[in-house]
Amino acid sequence: MSPIDERLKSLNIVLPDVMPPVVDGYVPAFAPFTRSGDQIHLSGRLGKEGGKLLCGKVGEEISLDQGKLAARHVAIELLAVLKAAIGDLGCVRRIVKLFVMVNGAPHFTEPHRVADGASELLVQVFGERGIHSRSAVSVAQLPFGACLEIDMIAELEATQP
Amino acid sequence: MSPIDERLKSLNIVLPDVMPPVVDGYVPAFAPFTRSGDQIHLSGRLGKEGGKLLCGKVGEEISLDQGKLAARHVAIELLAVLKAAIGDLGCVRRIVKLFVMVNGAPHFTEPHRVADGASELLVQVFGERGIHSRSAVSVAQLPFGACLEIDMIAELEATQP
Amino acid sequence: MSPIDERLKSLNIVLPDVMPPVVDGYVPAFAPFTRSGDQIHLSGRLGKEGGKLLCGKVGEEISLDQGKLAARHVAIELLAVLKAAIGDLGCVRRIVKLFVMVNGAPHFTEPHRVADGASELLVQVFGERGIHSRSAVSVAQLPFGACLEIDMIAELEATQP
Repeated sequence: MSPIDERLKSLNIVLPDVMPPVVDGYVPAFAPFTRSGDQIHLSGRLGKEGGKLLCGKVGEEISLDQGKLAARHVAIELLAVLKAAIGDLGCVRRIVKLFVMVNGAPHFTEPHRVADGASELLVQVFGERGIHSRSAVSVAQLPFGACLEIDMIAELEATQP
Repeated sequence: MSPIDERLKSLNIVLPDVMPPVVDGYVPAFAPFTRSGDQIHLSGRLGKEGGKLLCGKVGEEISLDQGKLAARHVAIELLAVLKAAIGDLGCVRRIVKLFVMVNGAPHFTEPHRVADGASELLVQVFGERGIHSRSAVSVAQLPFGACLEIDMIAELEATQP
Repeated sequence: MSPIDERLKSLNIVLPDVMPPVVDGYVPAFAPFTRSGDQIHLSGRLGKEGGKLLCGKVGEEISLDQGKLAARHVAIELLAVLKAAIGDLGCVRRIVKLFVMVNGAPHFTEPHRVADGASELLVQVFGERGIHSRSAVSVAQLPFGACLEIDMIAELEATQP
């Protein structure tokens, strides 16, 4: 068991099965990730609760705490995609960038606090390698009315084939 | 004629002249693309119909099908920029990432279906190399009120100067 | 004094102290920048005026000119982060990408003109190396209600450790 797998276990995190990412019969015309040199670019993934899409406006139907938890779950899904992509999360050199798009109510000005749900999880799992650059915004709407969407860039150890 | 050029021809796609990207007298203070290592980063381009900007909210003035077609046209423009950048689209190793920003009506929750217009075109043209990672969102507004904007990262063959 | 430092001086630009980026007691769970190969990815930074956050909708409470100036200030902050990251701005090979997210009023369709405040500053400072790819959009809201947020990718000279 790799150190990252042990960390996940100690945090009681079980990586979900992420393939295929079909929602409501919609089959994506794109991939969950691509590789470019040592970078892995991960497609935006939508906020969920209890394994189901969590839809609605954060700051209205969805509370800040619910949104933050949904962001944490998306980060866990992104790790599951990353593991499916590279086999061993121990090969991650660094989480490079997180882009957090919150489906916020018009006057909700805390997308950054929602985003912290994902950011904190990444640092818990990867330690210093999980400290990333980030942008967090509220957008007007999201696919299926989901409460948030997050995409990510990670970098692998250069020795990784 | 390269295999990609033949594919474009068989799809009846003629790459437009994309330079200079001046709209309504506005001269951009930025470039259509930059290169970083083996990556080409392409600036966001706006949705058009019949060579003219297509403005309005998707889900209100603009139908889903119109939006999807506009997204396809943007993808073709992005290919035109890419060709101008590197000379031969056969040097593209992979489409890395697509970011699709739809000017959606408040309750329009299908930016991903709009985005498919671009995604499907890229896979038609490049096959497996065109399968990309993607995020799709609805934003509040876009330059000139355009119905959508798409930017892209592509990766070149490492041997490409 | 490096050529870039001289350019900054001739433009009367003093790079601000950007660390730590704590706002209103909020301590970020992420870093101002990360490095990935020769790329530096900079976190989104918020629009300010006179060293304080500038909040409100561009096109309503905030004028286009105020927004453009705020974008210029963000670009200066991004340069300050970049200098803190790499020591010498002369090591920048190229500004790769700018993503400008404007907190625009519903009918404000000029996020690109706001973004020019940042784009023009980068070209003034870096000349040809400052010409970047860019996307500019209006989003629904931003952290703390800020008038805009900008993130950036820069590339370093390959010889840079």
